[in-house]
Amino acid sequence: MVQKEGIVYLVGAGPGDPDLLTMRAYRLLREADVVVYDRLVSEAILALIPPGTARISVGKQPRSHPVPQHEINNLLVRLAAGGRAVVRLKGGDPFLFGRGSEEASHLVHHGLRYEVVPGVTSASGCAAALGLPLTHRGRASGVRFITGHCREDKALDLDWRGLADPDTTLVIYMGMATIAEIAVRLISNGLSELTPVAAVCNGTRPEQCCVISTLGEISAAVAALDGPTLFFIGRVVDLMPTLAPGRSVASGSWLPSHARRA
Amino acid sequence: MVQKEGIVYLVGAGPGDPDLLTMRAYRLLREADVVVYDRLVSEAILALIPPGTARISVGKQPRSHPVPQHEINNLLVRLAAGGRAVVRLKGGDPFLFGRGSEEASHLVHHGLRYEVVPGVTSASGCAAALGLPLTHRGRASGVRFITGHCREDKALDLDWRGLADPDTTLVIYMGMATIAEIAVRLISNGLSELTPVAAVCNGTRPEQCCVISTLGEISAAVAALDGPTLFFIGRVVDLMPTLAPGRSVASGSWLPSHARRA
Repeated sequence: MVQKEGIVYLVGAGPGDPDLLTMRAYRLLREADVVVYDRLVSEAILALIPPGTARISVGKQPRSHPVPQHEINNLLVRLAAGGRAVVRLKGGDPFLFGRGSEEASHLVHHGLRYEVVPGVTSASGCAAALGLPLTHRGRASGVRFITGHCREDKALDLDWRGLADPDTTLVIYMGMATIAEIAVRLISNGLSELTPVAAVCNGTRPEQCCVISTLGEISAAVAALDGPTLFFIGRVVDLMPTLAPGRSVASGSWLPSHARRA
Repeated sequence: MVQKEGIVYLVGAGPGDPDLLTMRAYRLLREADVVVYDRLVSEAILALIPPGTARISVGKQPRSHPVPQHEINNLLVRLAAGGRAVVRLKGGDPFLFGRGSEEASHLVHHGLRYEVVPGVTSASGCAAALGLPLTHRGRASGVRFITGHCREDKALDLDWRGLADPDTTLVIYMGMATIAEIAVRLISNGLSELTPVAAVCNGTRPEQCCVISTLGEISAAVAALDGPTLFFIGRVVDLMPTLAPGRSVASGSWLPSHARRA
């Protein structure tokens, strides 16, 4: 009997709401032999995996260490080389801060097939849920995505002068640990401390919450948030009350987007 | 009889491949009373609309003028005020160069309900189809999306100095008419003329094609392309041959992504 040829699908799960999975991601999840998933993939999405499908978590668990990237790479190679159809499920989009290209390189190096299935990136998902456009005439002519996550022992090494651009919406992924430093650097490079900032925790999920503040005060304002958080910096944040007037705003906190679902 | 309350769903159709619609977008398309769609929405996606559903094209047709934005705004208000469930279908993501926030403002101003359904933005869709990561350790710590489209009679007014950052992947939407100017400005602001550039025309669609060049030569290299084109500028472009070795590269042109589909 000829062994089935394995393949790894690097699949973007989007920001958390299972309704925001792509059609292709949904089908692959239903058909995979095994699903290897990250910590940031929501429970609601994992619930779509059929009961008979093998699942492997490689995410960081509370009080434990994450699985190192080279072990994930080797796991994917082993599974695909064994003829499995593997879904490697990642939050957001695999090629946008997802380290998808590192896993892809490793698979290619071992002569294995892979395919990337793009996902709705968290910035788009949260922007839609909040009524917060990423671009808007007269307020933001473009958008820039950066990560606040540092490589071990390294300081954030970013083009602060270029980032301090009042005409660009700045979205920071994985910035909870470094938002204080980011705010200070942007202000010292010329961005007004009154620039509006929205921080969205658990965006698009039932437990979504949002804090509205300014660049000068955002670090203190988000101290109580717990969960994956995305920061939006720029004048588009001021449009939120206009674009979502049906939702309650109390001391800067917003209701979950589900309150608005038809 | 009480009239049904209308609503407008501002829905991102993604880059063109119907498999990249979100689950929610697909369901809304099947259930809408009327679909108002743009030129950039692919035929394959329009084919998913049930035969009995009203469709209204507001896209620019060859040799004709586009429907002005204020007429689109008024159309959406009229339809929703009449109790219709309207899907306003846009290429990519509605809040990322989609003018979704202008339509949303108009609806809110008229006291009408709306919801944004985010989509896979073209940058993610094309990146996945080409094996071109938007971020990659050591090559791009972030990504920036700008538009090459100018408002009437205006020159491109961008932060050229900040844009000329070799550590950021730059993605240009709607840049075909202005790529020559963009390249000249980036080079004169310090970006090397040897910076690799990929131009993707009709990304994720059966007729997808891709040209690989450099910043110094991209303008001449894309002269023959016809269709919506996205430009990727930065060192991540050099990863394409590694990440997609199974596909043919002939004189800088790539096969459609469908050749790789499982």
